[in-house]
Amino acid sequence: MSVQIAVDAMGGDHAPEVVVEGAIAAAQEADDSVHILLVGPRERLERLLASHQASQLPISVLHAPEVIGMDESPSVALRAKPQSSVHVGLQAHKSGQAQAFVSNGNTGAVMAAALFILGRLPNISRPALPAYFPTLENTSIVLDVGANVDCKPEHLVQFALMGSLFYQVHLHKERPTVALLNVGEEPSKGNEVVRQAYQLLSEKTTELNFIGNVEGRDIFYHGADVVVCDGFVGNVLLKFGESIPDILQRLIKEAVVNEQLGEKEQYLIFGVLKQVLRRFDYAEFGGVPLLGINGTVLIGHGSAPARAVKRMILEAASMVEERILDRMAELFKTTH
Amino acid sequence: MSVQIAVDAMGGDHAPEVVVEGAIAAAQEADDSVHILLVGPRERLERLLASHQASQLPISVLHAPEVIGMDESPSVALRAKPQSSVHVGLQAHKSGQAQAFVSNGNTGAVMAAALFILGRLPNISRPALPAYFPTLENTSIVLDVGANVDCKPEHLVQFALMGSLFYQVHLHKERPTVALLNVGEEPSKGNEVVRQAYQLLSEKTTELNFIGNVEGRDIFYHGADVVVCDGFVGNVLLKFGESIPDILQRLIKEAVVNEQLGEKEQYLIFGVLKQVLRRFDYAEFGGVPLLGINGTVLIGHGSAPARAVKRMILEAASMVEERILDRMAELFKTTH
Repeated sequence: MSVQIAVDAMGGDHAPEVVVEGAIAAAQEADDSVHILLVGPRERLERLLASHQASQLPISVLHAPEVIGMDESPSVALRAKPQSSVHVGLQAHKSGQAQAFVSNGNTGAVMAAALFILGRLPNISRPALPAYFPTLENTSIVLDVGANVDCKPEHLVQFALMGSLFYQVHLHKERPTVALLNVGEEPSKGNEVVRQAYQLLSEKTTELNFIGNVEGRDIFYHGADVVVCDGFVGNVLLKFGESIPDILQRLIKEAVVNEQLGEKEQYLIFGVLKQVLRRFDYAEFGGVPLLGINGTVLIGHGSAPARAVKRMILEAASMVEERILDRMAELFKTTH
Repeated sequence: MSVQIAVDAMGGDHAPEVVVEGAIAAAQEADDSVHILLVGPRERLERLLASHQASQLPISVLHAPEVIGMDESPSVALRAKPQSSVHVGLQAHKSGQAQAFVSNGNTGAVMAAALFILGRLPNISRPALPAYFPTLENTSIVLDVGANVDCKPEHLVQFALMGSLFYQVHLHKERPTVALLNVGEEPSKGNEVVRQAYQLLSEKTTELNFIGNVEGRDIFYHGADVVVCDGFVGNVLLKFGESIPDILQRLIKEAVVNEQLGEKEQYLIFGVLKQVLRRFDYAEFGGVPLLGINGTVLIGHGSAPARAVKRMILEAASMVEERILDRMAELFKTTH
């Protein structure tokens, strides 16, 4: 049986065109193992699909007449647009028509609607949004990066449990290492919240492979598989990190001009740069799951290209096959 | 009249050799306008100075028999080593024998001792440590980056005032722009502390050129001259940023190997890289002042090379000439 994925066709800066392209690419690659429900204005989407001659693919349209803008207030959109592609897609997931929902739309609105429509898993106080960080070794996840700006120590412990399970199952590593992001290595370092979280994490020796504190400088060196922090620190860090590729390109262009390099030499340098920057390319990851809600919801960048949309849809299908939601519910039955 | 600068000869990973070299270079460059008090074990320092044939330079030794290790607990060192180079140097500053004290030693110990020996300026609740961040435009300062991990909104306002004054006078810009580091642009964004700080900062229209929130992604684009945050976020961000140059070098080496580039091509690429990384080199800045204490104290990296030590000594002399301490005291007489 194929996995049904509801896709917010109207989410992102270049919706619906880029989303439809990504969905078509995903359907082609998944070869009938994934059925895609494109959620948005029926006529517009069907016209787009027709223009791509995609009628043979396992893609159908689920009508949603309203669209939430990228800059709309999440709380206003939640109440004012019950027929938005986000709402209709999440309802399709809740009803079982789809086993997952993915969106490149307004992150805040998707999170608010997911929480409202799907609710949290039992015993989870706060859903969390992880981010992938490239490291010298491979990839770490850092969470939370935006869902929670005021955290208690218990919340950080739940982030650790959710992140560890996700990393283990989805990134295929037994007992991934988990660390607390802090200003120093010693348990006594940091503010009140992280000091208490350190103690609580230390006690969870069976559930977690907690290795202590890591500092900002440790992240790129793969200080841990899973790095736990509150959503304020995580969000600042993520956005700072995301600016690195563009900054590097600009600085290198500047240097190339200063040194008056020829065409051949520029070609060489930008070739190497491209290889390096691939490690920082969020499109390679597709999207991240909103962990802790009673559903499988992935959120991607607003500026995502079609290949990132494709990747996110396939990631969602993997998460369904890996039964991460059931496992998460199971874990929090006994531990929290 | 020359400015007297007390220099912790025993601070840093390569003390006292590198510090002595830096002091000699500073004395040579300052051409009698700076007198350096090298603080540490007299015999050892005099031997070093003699080996450099520096007897004609305005450098004298102030004896301090004890040394605080880079990894020692600041609070323990504060009590157990009253004859350390840090203590003796700060005492020399307090007594007026020196107009500033600089150290590449244990940051926590220097901050604790400075606070204990010199005290805070009237009306300042918390001293703050800024950091220089390279930007596309030039340089921003971010503060606090480590002195305060639990902050109240009022503390952030004081950081803004101190940072703004320092930027204006020392980095020569009238009404520097000041922003609050946050997870979004809108005033309603962020945790409780930054939301309140936003309001308080908005009211200080005469004292500050407050331009609102900036996000992590804005820093490298010079979102503001002065970026205000608590010491937890600032420290994580600083250390993350400091890891970028080494990570880049490693990734580029990897790419160069993958592409099997020849010697000539490697030379070209690393030449460009070197130019780019110069922007990220903390040694170019020398050190940062601990703002808000009743004295002029600069702290540098433990791994600082001699040219960074030299730079820090000259920076300290500039700060004395710019009368930043008096101006800071003046500002906080009326505003806080």
